[in-house]
Amino acid sequence: MAIHYPNGKAYAPKKELLKISKKDYSFSNRGKTLEDELNEANEYYLSNDIAVIYKKPIPIQVVKVDYPSRSGAVIKEAYYRTPSTTDFNGVYQGKYIDFEAKETENRTAFPLKNVHLHQMEHMNRVLKQNGVCFLLVRFSAFDRYFYLPFAQLQLFWERMQTGGRKSIALTEFEEQAIEITPKYAPRIDYLKIVNNLNA
Amino acid sequence: MAIHYPNGKAYAPKKELLKISKKDYSFSNRGKTLEDELNEANEYYLSNDIAVIYKKPIPIQVVKVDYPSRSGAVIKEAYYRTPSTTDFNGVYQGKYIDFEAKETENRTAFPLKNVHLHQMEHMNRVLKQNGVCFLLVRFSAFDRYFYLPFAQLQLFWERMQTGGRKSIALTEFEEQAIEITPKYAPRIDYLKIVNNLNA
Repeated sequence: MAIHYPNGKAYAPKKELLKISKKDYSFSNRGKTLEDELNEANEYYLSNDIAVIYKKPIPIQVVKVDYPSRSGAVIKEAYYRTPSTTDFNGVYQGKYIDFEAKETENRTAFPLKNVHLHQMEHMNRVLKQNGVCFLLVRFSAFDRYFYLPFAQLQLFWERMQTGGRKSIALTEFEEQAIEITPKYAPRIDYLKIVNNLNA
Repeated sequence: MAIHYPNGKAYAPKKELLKISKKDYSFSNRGKTLEDELNEANEYYLSNDIAVIYKKPIPIQVVKVDYPSRSGAVIKEAYYRTPSTTDFNGVYQGKYIDFEAKETENRTAFPLKNVHLHQMEHMNRVLKQNGVCFLLVRFSAFDRYFYLPFAQLQLFWERMQTGGRKSIALTEFEEQAIEITPKYAPRIDYLKIVNNLNA
């Protein structure tokens, strides 16, 4: 049975409208955090047997735990600890994958204070073990995503340490990083870049 | 200057005593949990540029956080979540390493209820991606350690699922797993087994 609206006409969705709506659904991040988007990519990889990559849990120091019932423990006092590694790691076709993901509201540059020294040290160690290591940056204002191999990141880090600028310009990302163009599924297909760079 | 004790004699440690004390220090686990021992091995690997392997933080669902002062956040209500993966992962000479570690007080067998279905599924996926995957078991009563490759673990798991015994006998470990003999540093050198099996 056709649904009739108050104007007496049967409802017929306009094709153009549908298209836009579909585009919105598939290509917009719809206010998601970069972490959400990467978790979705990782779920896609996992369920399609493409890769096994997870975000690590945030390290928490538990101080006090109550056991109010049989249902289980309730943590009553705990503190966030500083992670000593990166956010994501896993395996893809025999390769060890390890990366940090950051988003910035900044429109011209990515401030390097978002990356910590211990993370740089960690990624350096991973590289020595022949792991695949990179920084994934989202410029949220433009919905643009960049894959910066660790070797490149290290050069910018050294520039900062020798008195140079404390950020990486968006123009530098355009020149030296690999841009990830959002697509349907997964939206942020970063393993495609891993493929291209490590083939 | 020599130190003189109330008996008037200079202090001279007995060689024999020193020997025993050194042996205690180096080969005994001194009441440590298996997790502590593996963290020590991983620290050894890390500081000697041998491998980059960490225990993952326990996943915790944070419900309520207070900010009592500038010093930082205090978690006031949180719950333990079930981990969806294994305890340890990382990279060793380009190889992705992923394993679960369990100790048992049982003197004759390792009960398979200590391993969860989602962990088996995770390790199966890792194996498909050509990761190195295994179970590390300590029989605490005897201070004996076994490295059981995932492929072997899977056979025991299938035996259980088809109505067979719900545990792996110690004698089966002796036959089908690789025993790790504790040594000086690191005490539990599991990467040596990885080397031998994946050379």
